[in-house]
Amino acid sequence: MSDDVTAVYEIESAVPLERAAEVIAGEQSCGTFVRVARESDELRARHAAQVVAVDELPPSGRPPLPGMTGDPCDVRRGRVTVRFPLANFGPSIPNLLAAVAGNLFELRDVGALRLVDLELPAAFAERYPGPRFGVAGTRRLLDRPDGPMIGTIVKPSIGLSGAELAQLVIELGDAGIDLIKDDELQGNPPGLPLRERVRVVTEALKEVADRNGRQPMYAFNITDDIDRLEPNHDLVLAAGGTCVMVCVNLVGLAGLEYLSRRTQLPIHGHRAMYGAYARSPQLGIDFRVWQKLARIAGADHLHTNGFANKFYETDDEVLASIAAVRAPLLGGYEALPVLSSAQTPGLAHTTYARTRSTDLLVLSGGGIHGHPQGSAAGVLAMREAWEAATSGEPLDQRAAAVPALAAALHTFGRA
Amino acid sequence: MSDDVTAVYEIESAVPLERAAEVIAGEQSCGTFVRVARESDELRARHAAQVVAVDELPPSGRPPLPGMTGDPCDVRRGRVTVRFPLANFGPSIPNLLAAVAGNLFELRDVGALRLVDLELPAAFAERYPGPRFGVAGTRRLLDRPDGPMIGTIVKPSIGLSGAELAQLVIELGDAGIDLIKDDELQGNPPGLPLRERVRVVTEALKEVADRNGRQPMYAFNITDDIDRLEPNHDLVLAAGGTCVMVCVNLVGLAGLEYLSRRTQLPIHGHRAMYGAYARSPQLGIDFRVWQKLARIAGADHLHTNGFANKFYETDDEVLASIAAVRAPLLGGYEALPVLSSAQTPGLAHTTYARTRSTDLLVLSGGGIHGHPQGSAAGVLAMREAWEAATSGEPLDQRAAAVPALAAALHTFGRA
Repeated sequence: MSDDVTAVYEIESAVPLERAAEVIAGEQSCGTFVRVARESDELRARHAAQVVAVDELPPSGRPPLPGMTGDPCDVRRGRVTVRFPLANFGPSIPNLLAAVAGNLFELRDVGALRLVDLELPAAFAERYPGPRFGVAGTRRLLDRPDGPMIGTIVKPSIGLSGAELAQLVIELGDAGIDLIKDDELQGNPPGLPLRERVRVVTEALKEVADRNGRQPMYAFNITDDIDRLEPNHDLVLAAGGTCVMVCVNLVGLAGLEYLSRRTQLPIHGHRAMYGAYARSPQLGIDFRVWQKLARIAGADHLHTNGFANKFYETDDEVLASIAAVRAPLLGGYEALPVLSSAQTPGLAHTTYARTRSTDLLVLSGGGIHGHPQGSAAGVLAMREAWEAATSGEPLDQRAAAVPALAAALHTFGRA
Repeated sequence: MSDDVTAVYEIESAVPLERAAEVIAGEQSCGTFVRVARESDELRARHAAQVVAVDELPPSGRPPLPGMTGDPCDVRRGRVTVRFPLANFGPSIPNLLAAVAGNLFELRDVGALRLVDLELPAAFAERYPGPRFGVAGTRRLLDRPDGPMIGTIVKPSIGLSGAELAQLVIELGDAGIDLIKDDELQGNPPGLPLRERVRVVTEALKEVADRNGRQPMYAFNITDDIDRLEPNHDLVLAAGGTCVMVCVNLVGLAGLEYLSRRTQLPIHGHRAMYGAYARSPQLGIDFRVWQKLARIAGADHLHTNGFANKFYETDDEVLASIAAVRAPLLGGYEALPVLSSAQTPGLAHTTYARTRSTDLLVLSGGGIHGHPQGSAAGVLAMREAWEAATSGEPLDQRAAAVPALAAALHTFGRA
């Protein structure tokens, strides 16, 4: 493995693709718009980013983003690979981003630019220890040695009283759920502050454990200012909680990394706001890249979206995201893909057929809480559907034997 | 002022705009895709976000973003105003973002969604002290009581030796530059680590001060992992430096806020990677919103781009960004707009005519370093052009008297 960083972009440009690629490499290493004093050939040889490959792609059919130089009729689309000397920034996630992303999205020479892949040298693995728990550690903590992990989100997202939340946790815990998570909207609101939420939830979890000999993992959303992350984590740890959640984009990758150096619990990484720099196919940072950085920064669990989700991504995109999170990275950084958004029992067979994995955390919010027979029946329906899927039993056959599953399919449909 | 947060979005949708607005408000407060148990009318009344206004706008003429529900032919565009109870998240920037941005960009009911404005209640001002220096504090530190502040960026961006950098700083300092900044690509590279850079630059600045009785402010790019921000800042402070720079998006708004609680120096806020969620007019977060959050998080200086820049933004957009940074926010948060990107002496008259302000930091990188008579002549040309602009003297008249200015106009052109 070399000491370089390789970044891959999909671009559209009205100038020849090779020239646009050179502009990208120049802007992000030692160049500016004019050649300046002290910019020696030796300096350029040492620090200039190198265009490694330019491969033409079919046109996107979309008009270029605003401000592009040249005639839109001349636009060609291509995949551009650029190699950056690690010596330009060292193994630092923030400084890496200045080079491989930085001002690139604003260049006039391109009418589209998306960072679609990133290969990092081993120096990053030396600096960033990454997730402490991953799949195996999470399975151990939530006591589910094999099979998919079934989770849910507290719904309504916000506004429950402490007593209502405790009741919900007990109901879900008694039903054998593996993980309950706060909604990303549930941070530290004045009505039910995190401190109080941690108290009532962990008490409820103890009650569940006493009764059933097993308690779900609860991912407390501790997202907040950096200075509050460690105290929030400590609050959860001291109360006997087993997981903390942060919205990665809201504390920043740097905030996640800060937390990961202090955590004694798995970090559940939510991707809220990811769409802001991902939904335009012509701009931003692909999930493939984002998840690498989030894992290096220490996320044990990463939201990938789920099949037939309520958001914009296609099933193929979701499958690619799950595969990306499961792929080893620099020899490690094991993380657990979290499937969510409108997940219901009817999706179990499709999900298993496409992923061929049970190293998944499948979250069903409305699909459990909205079950006509209540949350406990919702949990049972999810578990039964997944057991059928992994054992090769048709969904309808299992539903005929399990009324809660039949009711879920009736209410939420199937894939 | 109410206790609510008001967010304004520009959206495109194939469902009626009023319904799309309700989906936005529901998704980001207490709703999910089905009504669930415990979602009482009372809970909804307390926590539901409210659609305040829906105003139709002319169509964008762009195809909707991927994954939109409905027929693209039915798409209408509108400006939607939504009020969020502060009680849902409290005055926390990360938790605020979960609500006003969060998953919104991924909704299928919209084919475009951009957060274009945000009004915050006074509770944010109570929690976040904001910039400590602003315009007045910066003027005091760099000893420029009035008139525009003229700055430059170290070029080549990366790769200079310590001796070369010191020589450059001395040359620029002797020429009377007000501020020198590291390039955003210059973090803490192995070849010239920050520690060494701080040492050679501050020694050079002392030499300049001894000779001229005045020294420029130097904005050291201390961008790195959160745990390195304070030690990096302390290094600069201990050496007698007067400014630190961070790339706001690379340490995150949360990282900026963390630094702002510890800094004893002005924070120069670079906007690298801003384009990733801003260049598509159909997606992301407008500069108007971003700069508010960055000021609340503590940025004293904020990059706005400059007129006739080398990037994609139009002059009208740049003017709006400068005006936004200059507008008071919650009764304070004074910050200095930083104009950069291909800025040259030929732009002084246009810039002054459009902004009618000298509370600006105008950065010229290539326009100073690429001056045919050297960097010192480049500084002189910038200063003379601005003096002419602010005193109402035509550029050509001044250029006839100042050869360095004439040479700059000849090399770089004029607006």
